[in-house]
Amino acid sequence: MSNFCGTSEITGARFSIYPMADNFVEIILTALEEVDTSKVWMETDDVSTCVRGRSEHVFDVVKAIFLASAKTGNHVVLQATFSNGCPGDSAGDVYLTESPERVNEEKSSQINQEVAVQFALYPMGIPSYMNVIVDQVKLAEKQGTFTKGVHYASRLDGDANAVFQTLEDAFGGAHDSDSTHIVMTMVISANSPSKKGNR
Amino acid sequence: MSNFCGTSEITGARFSIYPMADNFVEIILTALEEVDTSKVWMETDDVSTCVRGRSEHVFDVVKAIFLASAKTGNHVVLQATFSNGCPGDSAGDVYLTESPERVNEEKSSQINQEVAVQFALYPMGIPSYMNVIVDQVKLAEKQGTFTKGVHYASRLDGDANAVFQTLEDAFGGAHDSDSTHIVMTMVISANSPSKKGNR
Repeated sequence: MSNFCGTSEITGARFSIYPMADNFVEIILTALEEVDTSKVWMETDDVSTCVRGRSEHVFDVVKAIFLASAKTGNHVVLQATFSNGCPGDSAGDVYLTESPERVNEEKSSQINQEVAVQFALYPMGIPSYMNVIVDQVKLAEKQGTFTKGVHYASRLDGDANAVFQTLEDAFGGAHDSDSTHIVMTMVISANSPSKKGNR
Repeated sequence: MSNFCGTSEITGARFSIYPMADNFVEIILTALEEVDTSKVWMETDDVSTCVRGRSEHVFDVVKAIFLASAKTGNHVVLQATFSNGCPGDSAGDVYLTESPERVNEEKSSQINQEVAVQFALYPMGIPSYMNVIVDQVKLAEKQGTFTKGVHYASRLDGDANAVFQTLEDAFGGAHDSDSTHIVMTMVISANSPSKKGNR
């Protein structure tokens, strides 16, 4: 463990995929096989999976795994926590020398999938964190994916590729603020049998 | 929307239950029927459910819904974000005049359920937030539920009632710090077919 912010290049995500189906194991394993994870460090335990590396590859892999699961048509939810700049973060478990080209983007961009998202930003360590959040919500409004605020989260709706773009831009925008440690949580749902309520 | 911290008595949680089974709707609805939610404000949309009220009732209801779902024997995961003191929080949608007695505790305490948890605390707005986190991890260690730190989270294992006690105490302990806005995220898994790895 290093106790200084020398690891701010590392972005990480801890996420889980929840296919609401008896064959959930098969859906997850099949999705994982379809995704190129060669540019990120990845470790799975019995609760979640952690990916670490350059920010673009972390987003690339999480989006690809979600889309590969959702295109089965099952109700699938992904929940994830993205983090950059945690002072307690270790310098290891990370591939930072990879080239910036996203290895899953071509395949992901061809998948059309309506999703509903609730996400929240947590810019740590600064009194003005609410301003950082408000700025990123304005960005989402400009991008046309923002639907409304709900208690403790902001809601996005639309095509998965557009929504993931907003999420990545919001995370990057917050990273450009005075906060050196940015956390973003998200829940993304596809193919829910529930009526879209409260839009 | 009120822009002052006059709502610090309100605790809220936004959570989702994911039963990995074809009959996930039935499992969720049956669990909801078994739980007394009369002491919290509650609203469900197509992504998650929000409960708001006195802190003890919010924890009481979330734990009860999780246990009612998990005792079906299915692999069930609950993910939740707890919040107290958000400056943008509204004063509405909350039952603060309820008596402190927990209406689901007797039933919940009789359910034995092994769980694995990954949780994270986000004390907002203060430079010393890492100290607040470290103090609450020490508390979890004392209570015997703490297993280890992982990237971006702390892991707890054990009986669901013990683990929820740690989570509630950690949230309350952080609330007693200099931070007036505390966020806690958690993922709780029961009956996973995965081997317990990385313990």
